Amino acid sequence: MDLNTLRHSASHILAAAVQELYPGARLGIGPAIEDGFYYDFDIPNVTLTSEDLPRIEEKMREIVKKNEPFERQELKKEEALKLFEKENEKFKVELIKDIPDEKVSIYKTGKFTDLCRGPHIGSTGEIKAFKLLTVAGAYWRGVESNPMLTRIYGTAFPTEEELKTHITKLEEALKRDHRKLGRELDLFNIYHEEAGPGLVYYHPRGARLRLLIEDFLRKEHLLRGYQFVMIPHIARGSLWNTSGHSGYYRENMYYLEIDKQEYVLKPMNCPGHILIYKNKLHSYRDLPVRFFELGTVYRYERSGVLHGLLRVRGFTQDDAHIFCTPEQLQEEISKVIDFAFEMLKTFGFEWEVDLSTRPEKYAGAEENWKHATDALVEALKQKGIEYKVDEGAGVFYGPKIDVKMKDALGRPWQGPTIQVDFNLPERFDLNYIAEDGSKKRPVMIHRVVLGSMERFLGALIENYGGAFPLWIAPVQVMILPIADRHAAYAQTVADQLLSQDIRVETDNRREKINLKIREAQMQKIPYMLIVGDKEEQQKAVAVRSRSEGDLGISDLNTFLEKLKKECYNKSG
Amino acid sequence: MDLNTLRHSASHILAAAVQELYPGARLGIGPAIEDGFYYDFDIPNVTLTSEDLPRIEEKMREIVKKNEPFERQELKKEEALKLFEKENEKFKVELIKDIPDEKVSIYKTGKFTDLCRGPHIGSTGEIKAFKLLTVAGAYWRGVESNPMLTRIYGTAFPTEEELKTHITKLEEALKRDHRKLGRELDLFNIYHEEAGPGLVYYHPRGARLRLLIEDFLRKEHLLRGYQFVMIPHIARGSLWNTSGHSGYYRENMYYLEIDKQEYVLKPMNCPGHILIYKNKLHSYRDLPVRFFELGTVYRYERSGVLHGLLRVRGFTQDDAHIFCTPEQLQEEISKVIDFAFEMLKTFGFEWEVDLSTRPEKYAGAEENWKHATDALVEALKQKGIEYKVDEGAGVFYGPKIDVKMKDALGRPWQGPTIQVDFNLPERFDLNYIAEDGSKKRPVMIHRVVLGSMERFLGALIENYGGAFPLWIAPVQVMILPIADRHAAYAQTVADQLLSQDIRVETDNRREKINLKIREAQMQKIPYMLIVGDKEEQQKAVAVRSRSEGDLGISDLNTFLEKLKKECYNKSG
Repeated sequence: MDLNTLRHSASHILAAAVQELYPGARLGIGPAIEDGFYYDFDIPNVTLTSEDLPRIEEKMREIVKKNEPFERQELKKEEALKLFEKENEKFKVELIKDIPDEKVSIYKTGKFTDLCRGPHIGSTGEIKAFKLLTVAGAYWRGVESNPMLTRIYGTAFPTEEELKTHITKLEEALKRDHRKLGRELDLFNIYHEEAGPGLVYYHPRGARLRLLIEDFLRKEHLLRGYQFVMIPHIARGSLWNTSGHSGYYRENMYYLEIDKQEYVLKPMNCPGHILIYKNKLHSYRDLPVRFFELGTVYRYERSGVLHGLLRVRGFTQDDAHIFCTPEQLQEEISKVIDFAFEMLKTFGFEWEVDLSTRPEKYAGAEENWKHATDALVEALKQKGIEYKVDEGAGVFYGPKIDVKMKDALGRPWQGPTIQVDFNLPERFDLNYIAEDGSKKRPVMIHRVVLGSMERFLGALIENYGGAFPLWIAPVQVMILPIADRHAAYAQTVADQLLSQDIRVETDNRREKINLKIREAQMQKIPYMLIVGDKEEQQKAVAVRSRSEGDLGISDLNTFLEKLKKECYNKSG
Repeated sequence: MDLNTLRHSASHILAAAVQELYPGARLGIGPAIEDGFYYDFDIPNVTLTSEDLPRIEEKMREIVKKNEPFERQELKKEEALKLFEKENEKFKVELIKDIPDEKVSIYKTGKFTDLCRGPHIGSTGEIKAFKLLTVAGAYWRGVESNPMLTRIYGTAFPTEEELKTHITKLEEALKRDHRKLGRELDLFNIYHEEAGPGLVYYHPRGARLRLLIEDFLRKEHLLRGYQFVMIPHIARGSLWNTSGHSGYYRENMYYLEIDKQEYVLKPMNCPGHILIYKNKLHSYRDLPVRFFELGTVYRYERSGVLHGLLRVRGFTQDDAHIFCTPEQLQEEISKVIDFAFEMLKTFGFEWEVDLSTRPEKYAGAEENWKHATDALVEALKQKGIEYKVDEGAGVFYGPKIDVKMKDALGRPWQGPTIQVDFNLPERFDLNYIAEDGSKKRPVMIHRVVLGSMERFLGALIENYGGAFPLWIAPVQVMILPIADRHAAYAQTVADQLLSQDIRVETDNRREKINLKIREAQMQKIPYMLIVGDKEEQQKAVAVRSRSEGDLGISDLNTFLEKLKKECYNKSG
């Protein structure tokens, strides 16, 4: 059985149930979607919440039990219009008017009738496993000036077992939701009201996590021959005219005025890095020049699409621009691919690769496009990397590789991108002196390895469910003195760990030790060191691991060795 | 002899010389200033440059030789007006009109007459040592809509020896000018035309230097119990209404619009840090809370006052906000003072301390002011620190300590500030739960230790004259292969150093070794390692220090030990 047909049929049953329970409820649309279905309703004087879902599910089960057939019928448009006008289904009427065909089809199940292209299952009894999930608001046809409808999400599967597996996965995803964990672990917040939506404030533990990753990234870039640069967040509008961004990207850019001139809060780092490249003469011997920056950019997104750390208005890219000769292009791409994969592996992600080729509208010579696409393909092939070709999905100035990171639940996240660019070197008249003394045009590679720090942290939180491996855990060790009299010894232990650059905190509250352990466990601290009379006498600590529980008593040096080894291996 | 009188008299002689050489040159003003004097002229159809100065000096020497007396004369205002109107001295006429007294004084030397309050030296022959320094443009009375005059700067001293010492110091300062060294050492640039004035772009070596200092700073903050936070660069205008900045600071703030609401490019980090403090309940046990951030801020400055790294439109503060109980205030201040001095010492600065007390207009209760001022004074006194009191120079919300850094030439630079604030905790309704369970108001300390990274780097470049000590030198070691055949061995040496985290570059150009050495020396690289046949055979390197010259042949491990020791000691 086709899953979409099943789910779409379930949405009809949902609509039938809602109309029985809430007479006067008018219908929007009810499609099958990835992982389920939804139906939109306009229910006068009723505000549905998730608490109403069991009652609706109950009614749906009744309809399923009746095993009513799905009956298809074809009507002339005028007949259909009359039918739905009579039933006061104004949204359906609007839909019919937009259909260009002369005839439309409707589906009936019992007393319920819906405008529908089909296909459907034979009868309602074929639905074996379904569940309603959430209630949300949604504008009619997604347009903000239209009425707000009530959308009920649900899902359906051929078997109860498949449904159960899916629900478990959803619950797991919910537990890992980075917004929820961001609050619980006190990592970050977005002060919508006070400071504006889509702008992230990193609290101490979140900032620590981010800086640990940034430090690691910077070190890895140095090892690979990148040079650091730093550019300001605002620049004259004219710079963005030269780059072309103010033409095709203007509505996503924030403008301000200084001394009666237009300035831009940078949406990209490239023009700034280009100014630095252009500032001095480059010989072919100096290339490739690789400029790296943790560059913060600001881009307008409608407030409706903002989502935690994943979709924001300000974010920091681990951004680099590589200026190289056409001959160096393939090797540079190859190095970036290795770099990107190594980073993803380090943070526990799998990946999938997409290659986006020349779109219909493009800038630059065809031979450049061929050279660049060949370089990307060759680099992938030589490494034996499987990839999907997305024909025509490149940006207008060059082809690119997109890497999707896959997390512990198999969910995809936007990750590294490698983009070849002939356009900006042209627009900014970039040069290098070739071996024969002539001036030549370098190629640029735009690349991010983690992508945006915000999005990456969101993915990382969900990938690890907040239980970060030891080497990046904002707090690695929590010391738990059993009573006030152990505070001094706890301090000695803390000082020794601190002196070894271990990130340690002490819970000195006058609370029961079990409560302290439970809270440290909830905070997903990798190691708890419990210190009481016995530990103090033995100059030792009782070690508890967040994943393995009680590990028994240990002397501090042995424990330190264990920590250092785990950090070095980036495990735990 | 009073130095100001001497210099002011020299400015009259300068004016007399200019009027002899350029008949029709009209006079602006000609005061003594710190370290010298200037005179402003309006010279029709003549553009003076520094090349004209020797000729003017020559003429001045003639006047000195004549030993003409300075003759004072008192005139009624009308007489003076008539006199200067006749001589077409329109600026002097304007000045006379503004004088409220009935009588004014003029001074004559030879044929030269000037409106002047005096006093002067007896006669021109008393000038023993003077020199003209530079020519610049200056608006009449400093107002941009007034005519641009030609300003000639000079200086004078009682003896030739003192003049010579001063000129040497000026030349030394010129050699150390951070804008000049910034270009020569390729540390940074400001792309006025392309991207806007006052906005700094860090080139690879400058970015490396800055990041090394930032990493060091962050580590030092961690050791002292600070927590890192990170906040976005824009925030709703309303946040700045709550803080009060949009009232008294508006003209220095950059505004933009998002979704029809006012947003601000942050000019300060405090409101953001306050949001994070306010996000959770704090017990007295948690205080002091110390939030640290390398926080970039943007403030409007007129383009005319912008100056290299010292006066910019965007800069990064090493900013912290300490939230503490009133009882903790003094100890926290004391810790910040220690921290600040330790940092300045590390970077080779001396310092002077100013205490700024309550201004006439102030916010907050008098007892708070007393408590805060006492805490600042006590902290200084207990350490036996000498300080100057600047009565009434505090900001309206609290008293502060300003530390001026003094560089190798004894010049002062704005450095650390420690500021007590009762106002923002009030405006944002900040609280902590006291030991007795009641809600209490914390005190805030705003503090920077280096100040602005931009200004600090400017001062640092000039303090070291670009010859940074080994531990922060962007390139620590330059490897100089004598011929192409030594490139492979040079690479082996480079790899070994790199693996020990030494910042190393190799000069592989086909140039004579002496030229390579000279250029590395000009780039102020701490160590050059020359590798040729002999070194390769001995598996060694010939070490050359930028300050001590040739240090002879050394095996690599011995050299590495030396490097590490110097880095550890932050010497070299």
